[in-house]
Amino acid sequence: MSRNPFQADPQVPARLACHDAEAVRDAAAPLIEAGVLPRADALDLVDRFGLGGVSDLMCHLLETAKGLSRPPISGFVVGAVGLGAATGDLILGGNMEFPGTSLHHTLHGEGFVAIRAFQRGEGLAELAIGEAHPCAHCRQVLTEFAGADDLILIDPLGHRLSLAELYPWPFDPGYLDQPGAVAGVGHGLQVAGEVPDTVARLLSRTPIHAPYSGVPAALVLEAGGRMVAGGSIESVAFNPTLAPVQTALVALVAEGGAPSDISAAWLAQPEGGAVDHGPPTKSLLAAIAPGAPLTEVRWR
Amino acid sequence: MSRNPFQADPQVPARLACHDAEAVRDAAAPLIEAGVLPRADALDLVDRFGLGGVSDLMCHLLETAKGLSRPPISGFVVGAVGLGAATGDLILGGNMEFPGTSLHHTLHGEGFVAIRAFQRGEGLAELAIGEAHPCAHCRQVLTEFAGADDLILIDPLGHRLSLAELYPWPFDPGYLDQPGAVAGVGHGLQVAGEVPDTVARLLSRTPIHAPYSGVPAALVLEAGGRMVAGGSIESVAFNPTLAPVQTALVALVAEGGAPSDISAAWLAQPEGGAVDHGPPTKSLLAAIAPGAPLTEVRWR
Repeated sequence: MSRNPFQADPQVPARLACHDAEAVRDAAAPLIEAGVLPRADALDLVDRFGLGGVSDLMCHLLETAKGLSRPPISGFVVGAVGLGAATGDLILGGNMEFPGTSLHHTLHGEGFVAIRAFQRGEGLAELAIGEAHPCAHCRQVLTEFAGADDLILIDPLGHRLSLAELYPWPFDPGYLDQPGAVAGVGHGLQVAGEVPDTVARLLSRTPIHAPYSGVPAALVLEAGGRMVAGGSIESVAFNPTLAPVQTALVALVAEGGAPSDISAAWLAQPEGGAVDHGPPTKSLLAAIAPGAPLTEVRWR
Repeated sequence: MSRNPFQADPQVPARLACHDAEAVRDAAAPLIEAGVLPRADALDLVDRFGLGGVSDLMCHLLETAKGLSRPPISGFVVGAVGLGAATGDLILGGNMEFPGTSLHHTLHGEGFVAIRAFQRGEGLAELAIGEAHPCAHCRQVLTEFAGADDLILIDPLGHRLSLAELYPWPFDPGYLDQPGAVAGVGHGLQVAGEVPDTVARLLSRTPIHAPYSGVPAALVLEAGGRMVAGGSIESVAFNPTLAPVQTALVALVAEGGAPSDISAAWLAQPEGGAVDHGPPTKSLLAAIAPGAPLTEVRWR
């Protein structure tokens, strides 16, 4: 077991234990939509239950966030709750694993929340996880995609750690004179009439960050009448890149859909670029939704 | 640009500048075989050129290691030189990128050296890179696959940092009560007579670490008359996992082969497991060696 050089504040678990966490979660459940608890409702819950603050509410909601977790390979259930830096909304997420394909498609709870925040056009001010002890892969994702210079990680054990403490001297986009991912910036791309209007609209609106490959890609998934989209979000460290099929799956699960209900998918990307999202998208879809047709289109 | 909280010793660059680095590299070149400079030769070079020690030699050889780098997407050339913990040999590596497939296949210089050490049955005592500032993805790989409790990262700027300083409170296999990757342990698997004898022998001998998926996989590549093998090396954090096609490519390039010369490949894995290395292997091979047939076989 790795050595923990950080101190936890014992007052946090003591304070959390004073409240009926289950009652808090029951009261929060009907207020959560698409994995998000609006700021006003969060403040109201803090007030109503006399909680120590929004950070304590985030810790109480970790169990709720676990409902978004789907880890059939590891059985290691992770819930994560982020505090949107711009809105103050609480953003819930869980980890996802996909049997029958590569482990490279795995989504971590921390990544799920970072993607959701990015899809909403904001970063994270705070992130609660079961233990403020993310893997290094997540430390890279949070550094790049969570608007994270000031991100604080908290947990019910009483840790309150800056990302800088957990990942000193980060290898970040600035090192290559890149500005990094900025939430809320549109990509301005459109696909032509080869796809249904709803699909075209979703493809053009989903956030994309692809400065390293120069291949902006987006995927729309149809599942149980629902339509969701996700774009590629590239890491300066390359491997922690989130593929459009991963970010679209995050949107699908956050919005209450099931990957196994996927009935169709549309992928938009340029032709002949430095990366090709076709094969990994097909591979992951074949594993989770065999038979769902994938239509590949190009940006106009 | 990220803040560097660490100090560098200015005596290191001053000392390195006192020697004719090019003469050192020219003398080392003919002694390097399959990306490895044997310990005796390294000590001899230190002596012959009056270097400050093996660490200084490692810094001088970073330029040589860049010869193993193939970064057609980023153009970001990285060389890395490891000190084998068991042998004292110097192990060279570079980063590799593969256009036309997913960025998830990217190999970092640090990972290249860690894989080579693992393939040789040893960990790393020291790792020299251009700046002791690996991305977080690499910090995870080094923590798990380089036998790395005591790993020291050095650079020509004079940094000398423990991995624990760069990645405090690591999420490691011990956290899940797993022993982690141990170099030099055989997998004991054999494939039946469906493949040439050389291929069967290489598949059975290549190191594998697959405790999380339970899917031990190995790949043999034939390229320009050369045959090399690589096994899957799984990370407890899942995504930093090294697929057999990645580790086999490391072996190929280290031994002087070219990915574009690949003429055939054989993949061994169990049937119906939690992961399937078939599609990502095909995808990467299609991008770098279109036309090379992939034969999939099962362990006996």
